[in-house]
Amino acid sequence: MKTGNKRRPVTEQVPELTTNRLSIYLRCLTRLEQAGVETVSSKALAEQFHLNAAQIRKDLAYFGEFGVRGVGYVVRDLRQQLRKILGLDHRLKVVVLGAGKLGQALADYPGFGREGFEIVAMFDTDPAKVGQHSRSGIPILHSRTLRAFATRTGIDIAVLAVPGEVAQEVLDLIVTAGVRAVLNFSPGSLRVSDAVKLKHVDLTVSLEGLSFFLAHGGEDGA
Amino acid sequence: MKTGNKRRPVTEQVPELTTNRLSIYLRCLTRLEQAGVETVSSKALAEQFHLNAAQIRKDLAYFGEFGVRGVGYVVRDLRQQLRKILGLDHRLKVVVLGAGKLGQALADYPGFGREGFEIVAMFDTDPAKVGQHSRSGIPILHSRTLRAFATRTGIDIAVLAVPGEVAQEVLDLIVTAGVRAVLNFSPGSLRVSDAVKLKHVDLTVSLEGLSFFLAHGGEDGA
Repeated sequence: MKTGNKRRPVTEQVPELTTNRLSIYLRCLTRLEQAGVETVSSKALAEQFHLNAAQIRKDLAYFGEFGVRGVGYVVRDLRQQLRKILGLDHRLKVVVLGAGKLGQALADYPGFGREGFEIVAMFDTDPAKVGQHSRSGIPILHSRTLRAFATRTGIDIAVLAVPGEVAQEVLDLIVTAGVRAVLNFSPGSLRVSDAVKLKHVDLTVSLEGLSFFLAHGGEDGA
Repeated sequence: MKTGNKRRPVTEQVPELTTNRLSIYLRCLTRLEQAGVETVSSKALAEQFHLNAAQIRKDLAYFGEFGVRGVGYVVRDLRQQLRKILGLDHRLKVVVLGAGKLGQALADYPGFGREGFEIVAMFDTDPAKVGQHSRSGIPILHSRTLRAFATRTGIDIAVLAVPGEVAQEVLDLIVTAGVRAVLNFSPGSLRVSDAVKLKHVDLTVSLEGLSFFLAHGGEDGA
């Protein structure tokens, strides 16, 4: 208890779906705080945002006791606790590998900055792009300078948005530069050591969920 | 039983996380089929792709009996069944609303076509964009022609990639055009009737999962 939970390997015990839901809870609490709500029960939170109250309690129980009996959660406190749990109590430096349309769209995505992620640079090998900036002013640097940049500026997270053919090569470059968290938008399967966390965003999975709805429920929609 | 399950409102009973996993199983089966594997048990499938065997059996049980005792699943058959369950046994027409960098990146995303989704058009109101094409040749049409396009060509799914300020207005336009499945990349909360399925892609949730890893497990990584 005295040492805090900073160095506990919590990630081994906490399911990824739980951490995804913590992000959702954080968004809900931010909206409640903006609306001036001071306390909320897990039941009220669940009802207002179409969540599951038992699931909320179970997810939070991984990290301690947050509710006050008879009161529920203090919105402001729980929000700050969740930001801390998610590592959002300090800004994180993010780079985007690949300055194509997707890379530039991601670099300029307004949500990232708002949530504490700072896009510090894009990297590419195309001489026509290197030296330019994205619309919001993110510089495009040459990929061969990635390692020096990581040493000098520090990189917390790398976003991989390059064509599938070069994805593994660029991923290896990222890992060599000492980056240990990668968000991957490139198609195809990638190999990485266990010391690096690789998260895939597969846009077709989302489309297939909609396809399932159309195939089964769509015709019954009233 | 006789009428088949085409019109059963399955979506009411099947959790969204299950349909997400069906997409993952489909990808795994595609890789096994490409590798020439003919049959696979839920245990072997789970081990090879880091899944959970009991979860696989439970997810599939929503849709019938697919395994053969002592043999496991016939890869080719299960893959075709999953494609049918996910509504991927015919091509689905997709439009992208908003021809900015994100919209154009999505329109040109190579994964969509491969999985049976056909991007048929982008829509925008910017006179400088209307009449142009994306790099892969997707035409950019004026948003006011969306309804006529839907009537003439048919639209299964609309992808919303417009700035947050106009997202609700464009969503209403999509719904008025008769589209009943929407994949949303725009920030902010949106209102839609129950007859329309709205799926959100929140890229910050993925980044926050990585932030959690860095805050808790990152330093222990070996």
